[in-house]
Amino acid sequence: MSKEFIFTYQLHTTEQEVGRMAKSIAIEQTIEMPEHLVTDEWVRDTIIGKVISTSQKAEDIFEVKASYYVEISDYQFPQFLNLLYGNISLYDGVKITNIELPDSFLKHFKGPRIGIDGIRNKLKTYDRPLMATALKPIGTSVAKLADFCYQFAAGGIDMIKDDHSLADHSFCRFEERVRACMQSIEKAEKETGKRTLYFPNVTGRVERLEKQIEFAIDQGVGGIILHPFIIGLDLARYLIDEYAGKICFMGHLSMSGVFLQKHHGLAPHIVLGTLPRLAGFDAIIFPHYGGRFKFSKESCVSITEACRNKLGSLNSGIPMPAGGMNLENVDQEWQIYGKDVVLLIGGSLYGRSPDLKANVECFQKKLTT
Amino acid sequence: MSKEFIFTYQLHTTEQEVGRMAKSIAIEQTIEMPEHLVTDEWVRDTIIGKVISTSQKAEDIFEVKASYYVEISDYQFPQFLNLLYGNISLYDGVKITNIELPDSFLKHFKGPRIGIDGIRNKLKTYDRPLMATALKPIGTSVAKLADFCYQFAAGGIDMIKDDHSLADHSFCRFEERVRACMQSIEKAEKETGKRTLYFPNVTGRVERLEKQIEFAIDQGVGGIILHPFIIGLDLARYLIDEYAGKICFMGHLSMSGVFLQKHHGLAPHIVLGTLPRLAGFDAIIFPHYGGRFKFSKESCVSITEACRNKLGSLNSGIPMPAGGMNLENVDQEWQIYGKDVVLLIGGSLYGRSPDLKANVECFQKKLTT
Repeated sequence: MSKEFIFTYQLHTTEQEVGRMAKSIAIEQTIEMPEHLVTDEWVRDTIIGKVISTSQKAEDIFEVKASYYVEISDYQFPQFLNLLYGNISLYDGVKITNIELPDSFLKHFKGPRIGIDGIRNKLKTYDRPLMATALKPIGTSVAKLADFCYQFAAGGIDMIKDDHSLADHSFCRFEERVRACMQSIEKAEKETGKRTLYFPNVTGRVERLEKQIEFAIDQGVGGIILHPFIIGLDLARYLIDEYAGKICFMGHLSMSGVFLQKHHGLAPHIVLGTLPRLAGFDAIIFPHYGGRFKFSKESCVSITEACRNKLGSLNSGIPMPAGGMNLENVDQEWQIYGKDVVLLIGGSLYGRSPDLKANVECFQKKLTT
Repeated sequence: MSKEFIFTYQLHTTEQEVGRMAKSIAIEQTIEMPEHLVTDEWVRDTIIGKVISTSQKAEDIFEVKASYYVEISDYQFPQFLNLLYGNISLYDGVKITNIELPDSFLKHFKGPRIGIDGIRNKLKTYDRPLMATALKPIGTSVAKLADFCYQFAAGGIDMIKDDHSLADHSFCRFEERVRACMQSIEKAEKETGKRTLYFPNVTGRVERLEKQIEFAIDQGVGGIILHPFIIGLDLARYLIDEYAGKICFMGHLSMSGVFLQKHHGLAPHIVLGTLPRLAGFDAIIFPHYGGRFKFSKESCVSITEACRNKLGSLNSGIPMPAGGMNLENVDQEWQIYGKDVVLLIGGSLYGRSPDLKANVECFQKKLTT
């Protein structure tokens, strides 16, 4: 295991430029001034990033690896993100395709506390992918959303999440919604004996996040949804650390697309796998390849691996493909993920028939036959 | 003034596709499900975004305007960002080039509290652009950074900021640095009678941000730097609201480049003008067009306007061009910004000569002759 950060850059440039560009990145991300002006030998030797390899991958694509002294990160998320992609986010044609994180850095992060095993234990469901759906659309009354909850739970769904635009609107208050949805779910659970975990969407001014989370915990929710790419990964990490173990944390993909450009940003498995796992998310929503966001099958598989593969001593997170996943062919499509996955089907679960309970039963049948 | 949000989208697509794409955005950002499944008339009429105009700008570029019901934002930053560019960040070829924000939304934000007038009053400097520089590079000892401070302040610099990678490293502790730099600056101020504002860089785990800010206030700093695109705009807004009026807040551009792609993201004046101003930043760092980041002169001017032009009843922020601005030709280059600007020169101010005091005197001469 490396004792430094090793970042792999994919540079969209020419053979003439690649060396200069690699050096320029290593300087921009550290000393941020011309190297000849640095008078301290220690800074020149230790602080400036080191380009350790360069290879050509296509006519205009080069792969460069550089290493960075781990202490530069200050062992905290914001400064790590700064080092990873702060100023060079303003460069053209620089994308990070892989990151190696030393244990000396990883040990400062607690990762997912509940993870796949914890969620399966809560649900006592071990032998198939988990089923999730979303309460939608925004604008629907609390009473109606609670009725959807009842029907979904009666059908045996494992997890119900709020749509990510449900906030604390005058037409659908957070507290009323959480209370009513939990009552519906508890009613269904009493009838069926099957547990369903409800995840309200926690979004709002920083001042109110902790109050909302505490209210949700008091109501007995299974977890909550946060938007790490909107509220910031370290604020998410902080909230998760604060309430760790009491509930599960689901990370939403909202705004993550800004990192996911062809020649710019970070590889999908970093954005929707490694970073939210570092923050401690138990479940991470990402775009399913067959859905309405253009995402490749390879990206989906790489995210799944980043959620589950060894990362220091951090627990695994559960990948949660979504975004236009279809009830019709879910029996085919889940297989690329393996069974430790949560399949989130929204619109298509509402669309099959007005009988939401029957729709969930159909969903489950698709996973068990 | 509009009573709704009006967002202008630049779509990179074909004439055949543009109508479908515009509709798909208005649905994705609100109900997030097929429209025919929505049973509530109110949701169909009020919640779904409305495409209000479409025009062709080039062969493959179309401009679409859509309006959204203001209440969808819940009058808070995270849900507004979600509505602005949450899920559609995962679309290809969708860029937001303008936003119109109704007063009913703006009145929930306090904006910059000190602003250009407040900073000029602190510095008693009214007739020229303000001069700023950065303490660098990371790895330099506290004693040496404090000596830089003394020389810069003795030369009459208006503002000194930490480089944005200075955190709370074992080799340069935050508290030691702030204390030593303030002592140096106070010494120089006593000798010259000229005030210099010091802005330490506040970055770190959420748990520690408020402690660092309070320490810095106790030491008498002029302001602090935050990284809104790393810690999240609403956490920045929260911290600014919490300590408003006591110090100035400078927003750093780190990670902002992820929003600034040719056919994707948000226009520069939204990212580095309107959004940080909404959060309450007094000064906003952005890439100068002549520097090492590829930025057009038009983008720079549009950012300046977004910092200063009317935005509800919010104060103006001060634009702060940086990133390779050069001492050599700063006398020419500042003029496009007008005099209400802070010119941030780092490397080139160190590079002119080892006599940093003389270098600042040269900087000032360039602005006054």
